Amino acid sequence: MITGKNYIGNQLSSTGNVTYKTINPKLNIENEPTFFEASQEEVEKAVYLASEAFEGFKKMSGSKKAKFLNAIADEILAMDDLLIETYISETGLPEGRAKGERGRTIGQLRAFADLVIEGSWVDATIDTSDLDRSPIPKQDIRKMLVPLGPVVVFGASNFPLAYATAGGDTAAAFAAGCPVIVKSHPMHAGTGELVASAINKAAIKTGMPEGVFSNLNSSGIEIGVQLVKHPKVKAVGFTGSIKGGRALLDLASQRPEPIPVFAEMGSINPVILLPEAMTARSADIAKTYAKSITLGAGQFCTNPGLILGVKGKNLDHFIKVLSDEIIKIKPSCMLHPNIISNYERNKTNVLQQKGISVTANLENDIAINHARQTVTTVAGKTFLENKILHQEVFGPFSIVVQCKDIEELETIINTLDGQLTGTIIAEKEEISRYNTVIDALQNRVGRIIFNGVPTGVEVCPAMLHGGPYPASTDSRFTAVGVQSIKRWVRPFSYQSWPNELLPDTLKNENPLGISRIIDGNRTSSKI
Amino acid sequence: MITGKNYIGNQLSSTGNVTYKTINPKLNIENEPTFFEASQEEVEKAVYLASEAFEGFKKMSGSKKAKFLNAIADEILAMDDLLIETYISETGLPEGRAKGERGRTIGQLRAFADLVIEGSWVDATIDTSDLDRSPIPKQDIRKMLVPLGPVVVFGASNFPLAYATAGGDTAAAFAAGCPVIVKSHPMHAGTGELVASAINKAAIKTGMPEGVFSNLNSSGIEIGVQLVKHPKVKAVGFTGSIKGGRALLDLASQRPEPIPVFAEMGSINPVILLPEAMTARSADIAKTYAKSITLGAGQFCTNPGLILGVKGKNLDHFIKVLSDEIIKIKPSCMLHPNIISNYERNKTNVLQQKGISVTANLENDIAINHARQTVTTVAGKTFLENKILHQEVFGPFSIVVQCKDIEELETIINTLDGQLTGTIIAEKEEISRYNTVIDALQNRVGRIIFNGVPTGVEVCPAMLHGGPYPASTDSRFTAVGVQSIKRWVRPFSYQSWPNELLPDTLKNENPLGISRIIDGNRTSSKI
Repeated sequence: MITGKNYIGNQLSSTGNVTYKTINPKLNIENEPTFFEASQEEVEKAVYLASEAFEGFKKMSGSKKAKFLNAIADEILAMDDLLIETYISETGLPEGRAKGERGRTIGQLRAFADLVIEGSWVDATIDTSDLDRSPIPKQDIRKMLVPLGPVVVFGASNFPLAYATAGGDTAAAFAAGCPVIVKSHPMHAGTGELVASAINKAAIKTGMPEGVFSNLNSSGIEIGVQLVKHPKVKAVGFTGSIKGGRALLDLASQRPEPIPVFAEMGSINPVILLPEAMTARSADIAKTYAKSITLGAGQFCTNPGLILGVKGKNLDHFIKVLSDEIIKIKPSCMLHPNIISNYERNKTNVLQQKGISVTANLENDIAINHARQTVTTVAGKTFLENKILHQEVFGPFSIVVQCKDIEELETIINTLDGQLTGTIIAEKEEISRYNTVIDALQNRVGRIIFNGVPTGVEVCPAMLHGGPYPASTDSRFTAVGVQSIKRWVRPFSYQSWPNELLPDTLKNENPLGISRIIDGNRTSSKI
Repeated sequence: MITGKNYIGNQLSSTGNVTYKTINPKLNIENEPTFFEASQEEVEKAVYLASEAFEGFKKMSGSKKAKFLNAIADEILAMDDLLIETYISETGLPEGRAKGERGRTIGQLRAFADLVIEGSWVDATIDTSDLDRSPIPKQDIRKMLVPLGPVVVFGASNFPLAYATAGGDTAAAFAAGCPVIVKSHPMHAGTGELVASAINKAAIKTGMPEGVFSNLNSSGIEIGVQLVKHPKVKAVGFTGSIKGGRALLDLASQRPEPIPVFAEMGSINPVILLPEAMTARSADIAKTYAKSITLGAGQFCTNPGLILGVKGKNLDHFIKVLSDEIIKIKPSCMLHPNIISNYERNKTNVLQQKGISVTANLENDIAINHARQTVTTVAGKTFLENKILHQEVFGPFSIVVQCKDIEELETIINTLDGQLTGTIIAEKEEISRYNTVIDALQNRVGRIIFNGVPTGVEVCPAMLHGGPYPASTDSRFTAVGVQSIKRWVRPFSYQSWPNELLPDTLKNENPLGISRIIDGNRTSSKI
C-alpha cells in the first residue's frame, strides 16, 4: 500500500504541510494517494540518522552489505504487480519497459552485491617496510578505499527504477558503505515509496543500522537545497537537467566544506555520418536512426539529437528516408504533462530559428501527452552560429546538419559542449582518413560508438556513462556499471599499523583472498 | 645561466613590464637576476601551444613519454652545483636538504617513467560482445584512462624541486599525457627557471611537441587567475595555503565549464597520546616529537601542530621533556622573510588567546630569518571553544591540548577540520579500548600513523597524501606517489570499435602485455 509518507529511517512520517499527487499521463488524471513533502525537521532527522548509521555501516563486511543489496532486489521482485502497475500509472510507459527496467535495477543491485562479496574493488595496495633502509627507514604503508559518508541521491524522471530510489547511484553508495538519503522524484513518488519500502524491509531483515536509508518526498527545490547544504552530507548523485545539476554543483561548491556532486545532465549525442557509409547504406542507417530517435519517446539521455553529415545527394537521401520512416512510428506517451510541454516549448523554439527546415513532423491527431516525433535540417554555417541549436530537446527530436565539407563538420565538433556519447557511422576502409574528426569527437565525449546507436547503455565494467561538462559534472567517474562505486569513496592509508588491528582487506594473511598490489606486484597471496 | 625570462613553449620570452627578484633569506639580500612576470599575451600563447601540443601528446606511447620523463631527470642531474647553489640561495635550506629533495624529484620522474612503460595504469577494461544475446545483443565495450588536456601547476613554496616545476604534479601530468603550464613560485624563480630549462631541453631532445611545457614567472595572483579561468585549461594542481587553494577552487567552480582543482592545503596533523603509552614512555615520545616539530624549520605540510593527551602527571612530564628538548635544537632559517613574518604573526595571534601557556619558546638572539621553535599548552575546553587554535601555524610550533578525559579528547577530534594525517601513540594492548577515538580520527584524515611521526612522506603506491577538506580540495586523490596520475585523466569507452583502430592498450592481441580486466577477470593474456 502506498501511504504518501516519507521514510525517515525506519519510520513512516508525514509532519509537513505541503502535499501533492502524481499524474497518470496516459489518462491525464491525478493518481491517489496524496504525498506529504518532507518537513525541515524530517530532513534534519534523516541526515542525523544517516550520519549515526555511517559509523557502523562504514566498517560492515562485503558479505553483509551484499546480503542487504540482494535482499533489496528480492523485496522489489516480491512486490510484483503492485510495483509494475504503479510504475505504469505514474509514467505512461508500457509494461514491457517497466519489467525491463525492473530487471535492470535488480541486475545492478546483484552486480554490486557480487562486487563487494569478491572484495577486490577496494584497490588494496601494500608497501612493506624496510627498517634498515638508509638514510631513512621505510615504514609499512597500506592503502584502501573507504566510504565518504552520507550520500544524497536525486532520482531521475526518466528511469523511475534503474536511476531512482534503488537505482544505480543508491546501489553503488550502499556497496561502498555510504548511507543514502533519496530525494524522491515527484513525478513517480508512488513507485519511489514502494521501492523505499522494499529497501526498508531489506535493511531491517539484514540487520542494517537505522538511518542507512531514508526516502524524502519533495515537489519543489527546498528539500534538495537543504540536503546539499547540510554539513553532514558528504556527496550528491543527480540525474536530470543541466540547470538542475549546475544549481546543485554551485551549492555544493560554495559550502564551507565543498563536496562532490555527480550530476549526469543533458546531451545531444552527436552522430557523424562519413561519406562512404552514406554512399553504401544511407537508407539502412536512416531506418536504424528512426527507431533510435523515437525509442521510449526519445526520453533517454543518450538519444541522438544531432546528426552531422556532408551536404550532397547521399545525405539528402538519408534525410528523406529518416523522415519517411520516423513518421510511420506510432507516437508514445511522455512521462508527464510537464515533460511534454517542455518538449513542445523547446522544439518550437528550435523550429523558430532562422535556417531550420522541418523534414518530418507527425501532424495527425494524437492521444493526449503523446509526443510528435520531429526531424529538422539546417546548414552547417547556421548551426555553428546559433547556440540554441546546440541545446538538448528532450524527446523524439533530432537535427540533421548539412555541412559544406568535412572541415566544417570538424569545426562543428570542436564547438560542441561535452557529450555522453559520439557515434561514427563509417565504412571500415574510410575511417583512417578521418583521424582528426575522430580525435575532435573523442575530446568532447565519454563514449565513442562505431556503426551503432547511442541509445542502450550496457551495464558492464567497461561502460563509461558520463562525459566532459555539461554531459556530467565530473567526467572522471561513470554513472553506470560497478565502477560507479568509485564516486562514493576516498583512498585511506595506514602507516605502521599493527597487523591484527588492520581491516581484513589489508591484513598480511589476506583472509578475504582478494587481489592486491604488494610492493608493486599484483597478487592474491598473503604476505 | 638564469635569464629571468619565461619559457613560452621553446622560446625564452620577457614581454611584460612587471619585474621582481628572489631573496637569499640567510643573507637577507636580493639574488640576481631580475625576473620578468609573464604578460597576458605570453600566458595566452603558452595555453594555445599547450592546447595544440595536446593533440599529439595525448596519443604518445608510454615508452616515448618515459624517455621524456627520464631525460628531464638526466638534465636536472646534469646541472649539478648550479642548481644546488641556486636552490640554497633562494631558500636558506642546507645542502643536504637540497640534494635530498633533488633525489626525491629524480626518483618521482623515474617512477612515473616506469609506470607508463609498464602501461597497466590505464585500467584497461574489456567486455566482449555477445551478439546472440536476447532480447538485446551485447556490444563490445572497452574502457581506458585518457588525459584531460592542458594542466596548470602552481609550485609549492616549501618544496622548490619535489613539488614545483618538475615536481610530483608535473611528472604525473606528463605521464598521463597532459601538457603542463607551470606558474613558477616567486620565492624560488631561479630554481624554477633552471628546472624549466632542463624540461625544455629534455622535450626537444626526445621530440615532444612544442607547448608540452611552459614556465611562467609571476609575483602576484593575476597570472594564476588568468590561467585558471582559461577555457583551454582542463585541470589545476596547487600546493599552498587554504586561502590560496580555496580561491582557485572557487574560480574553477564558477567557470562556464567547471574544472577540477587539486589543492593540497593546510593541516595541523593531530597526534593522539593514549594513556598507557604516556605511562610507559612519555620522555622518549617527547624527544622524538621535539625533532619532528622542528624538522626543516617546521615547514612541512605534515608538521605535527596539535598534540592531544589526557591531563595528568604523565602528560605533564611529556610537556616538560618536549619543551626542554626542543629548546636545545639549533634554530633553522625559514624560506623567505614573508614566511617568517607570517610565522611570527600567526604564532603571536595564538599566544594572545585566552588560556594559552607557553612551555617552550627559544628566547636567545638568533640569526635573521631564523625561526624560534615554540611549544604551548591549553585546556581541552579552551581549545574546543576557540577556532583560532585549530588553525595552522606554518613553522616549528605545536600546541599540546590537555583534555580532561578521553571523551573530551574524542569530542575535540570530531570538531577538527580535515587533516592530511592523524597519529596514534599507544601501547598495542590499549588500542582496542579506544576504537571510537580511532574511528573519529579516521573520519578526519587521509593517513593514520601508529607510533610514528607524520613528517616524512614516503613516495610509494600505498601512500595517500591528501585528506578531507581543507587538507585537500579533493580527498579522493593523492598528491604523492604514482597513483597521483589519476588526477589528470578520465575514463573513456569505445563501443564496437574495430580492433585495428583501437589504441594498443585495448587491442585483442594485447601488444603491450599489460594487465587488463576482460569479461570480469584480470589477465595479461590476449583475447
